[in-house]
Amino acid sequence: MTGHETILPAWRPGPTRDAILGFLHDIDGVPPADRVACFDNDGTLWCERPTYVQLDFFVDALKAKVAADPSAAGTPEYTALLTGDHAAIAQLGLARIGLALVELFDGMTPEAFVAHAREFMRRAMHAGLDRPTRTTVYQPMLELLGELRRRDFAISVVTGGGTEFVRAISAELYDVPPEAVVGTLIKYALDRDGDGRPRLLRTTSILGDANEGPTKVTNIQTQLGRRPILAAGNSGGDREMLEWAGTANGPGLALLIDHDDPEREFQYLSSAETFTESEPITDVGRRLGWTIVSMANDWDTVFPPVGDEPVR
Amino acid sequence: MTGHETILPAWRPGPTRDAILGFLHDIDGVPPADRVACFDNDGTLWCERPTYVQLDFFVDALKAKVAADPSAAGTPEYTALLTGDHAAIAQLGLARIGLALVELFDGMTPEAFVAHAREFMRRAMHAGLDRPTRTTVYQPMLELLGELRRRDFAISVVTGGGTEFVRAISAELYDVPPEAVVGTLIKYALDRDGDGRPRLLRTTSILGDANEGPTKVTNIQTQLGRRPILAAGNSGGDREMLEWAGTANGPGLALLIDHDDPEREFQYLSSAETFTESEPITDVGRRLGWTIVSMANDWDTVFPPVGDEPVR
Repeated sequence: MTGHETILPAWRPGPTRDAILGFLHDIDGVPPADRVACFDNDGTLWCERPTYVQLDFFVDALKAKVAADPSAAGTPEYTALLTGDHAAIAQLGLARIGLALVELFDGMTPEAFVAHAREFMRRAMHAGLDRPTRTTVYQPMLELLGELRRRDFAISVVTGGGTEFVRAISAELYDVPPEAVVGTLIKYALDRDGDGRPRLLRTTSILGDANEGPTKVTNIQTQLGRRPILAAGNSGGDREMLEWAGTANGPGLALLIDHDDPEREFQYLSSAETFTESEPITDVGRRLGWTIVSMANDWDTVFPPVGDEPVR
Repeated sequence: MTGHETILPAWRPGPTRDAILGFLHDIDGVPPADRVACFDNDGTLWCERPTYVQLDFFVDALKAKVAADPSAAGTPEYTALLTGDHAAIAQLGLARIGLALVELFDGMTPEAFVAHAREFMRRAMHAGLDRPTRTTVYQPMLELLGELRRRDFAISVVTGGGTEFVRAISAELYDVPPEAVVGTLIKYALDRDGDGRPRLLRTTSILGDANEGPTKVTNIQTQLGRRPILAAGNSGGDREMLEWAGTANGPGLALLIDHDDPEREFQYLSSAETFTESEPITDVGRRLGWTIVSMANDWDTVFPPVGDEPVR
């Protein structure tokens, strides 16, 4: 009886849970200003398979646009997306596909974009898990966020996805405010309405670089100005962020989620296929002494019960 | 007796103080998530005359460099700065001068930069006001920050200066954490030390644009993701930010500090000479219905008593 019932109940007893409890104990002497934790989103806080939620959102918006104006379907990028033609998508390349999707929201205000994203999240169902997409968050990670928050941690979501998309859901799903989301940023243009009042409009350009790999670390510094002592991720794009947190002075925890649970979620080897790592990210993590989280073995519960989630 | 003794005591009774009290009353119905306030720093929260504090810091670092290596003084930019040759500085242009100063910190880690800035702030004396530079903050503005914080406002410093320099002092002077400072950002490079551990090093490039004018508004959106309902500034570089806050839905307050107090601080007309405004910023503010703060008339106290300030 180690308090399993009252703290982190969705985590099974074992070395992984012990490592987390050890960290929570060790931070007693860490000043509050240094209690900073950074969490990747896709595949770390919520499910990223079979497709990124943000891609589902963009394709949903594309379908709405084509329903209103069938001629919009005519570009190669949109045709490939609407027919789910993976070979054509691969041949066009992610950069062209991404730009075509971002163009769907060109000239939109941030408020309108957030409203669109929330409307989608209210009705989106996960393809395969038979639950609303907004409930595909990982219960053990929500419990960890809660324990960190009780210890006055500043918690950030550091995502390769679009900052504004994640901001639209981060308060509701994770209790993380907009300014604590670090992601890939769309540039805005300051425009004037007919009465001369300023308004912000989305463009199709990226501010800085896409938030993956080393850029996650430089963006943490430029946007947050503090170094995390805990980082959690699941892919090659999280490698530098986990190294950054894991080598801070004093207590540090680098958590790598291993998707090894085909029964309850998905089984896939992160990173090697999408990034330039020649080594599977789980091997990198073992070599560097990270705490590897086996979804199959370490998590008693994967998803929260459906029906309890907040609805806005 | 309107409570003048207990709330905003450094503000003299009158229309300006009444406008602020009215705003503080009107926000009763505003949800906490929308309680966002953005403050310019130089000339709004602390004194910017006769020179920007950050420039004093950079010139101080230049002097230390030249003391260690006299040959470093040989560039035209450094010679002009060290001799205070304003004509030469003007001829070289602010871009070249700024780059030469930023090069002083090239390759420095963020932690080392913060340590340098804090060391300077511990000993820097204001030229003319006979008080430590760290005490040239405006007492009425500190009181306003306190009242907003008591009402659960998220408070940001939105500065044209360097983000990292202002972060080094924002917690101590304003109780504003690093992630709530929006300024001009230096790019970082992710490097490795001899043991292969990651480290961040300053470069001499700017990330995005200098944080002035319309960029203050776009950076508030990209870095904070929320629209302020209160903004305070003092120069043409704050115009768009004040318009942005002043035209939000619901209660909004745009505060413009007018430096009209040569006895206790300085008297100068903001903006027209440094930005592309053809109209003095005070005239712009009157035309747009901003609340103009006369330092001479509206402030009972300008600076806090010396000796009470925190020392770190």
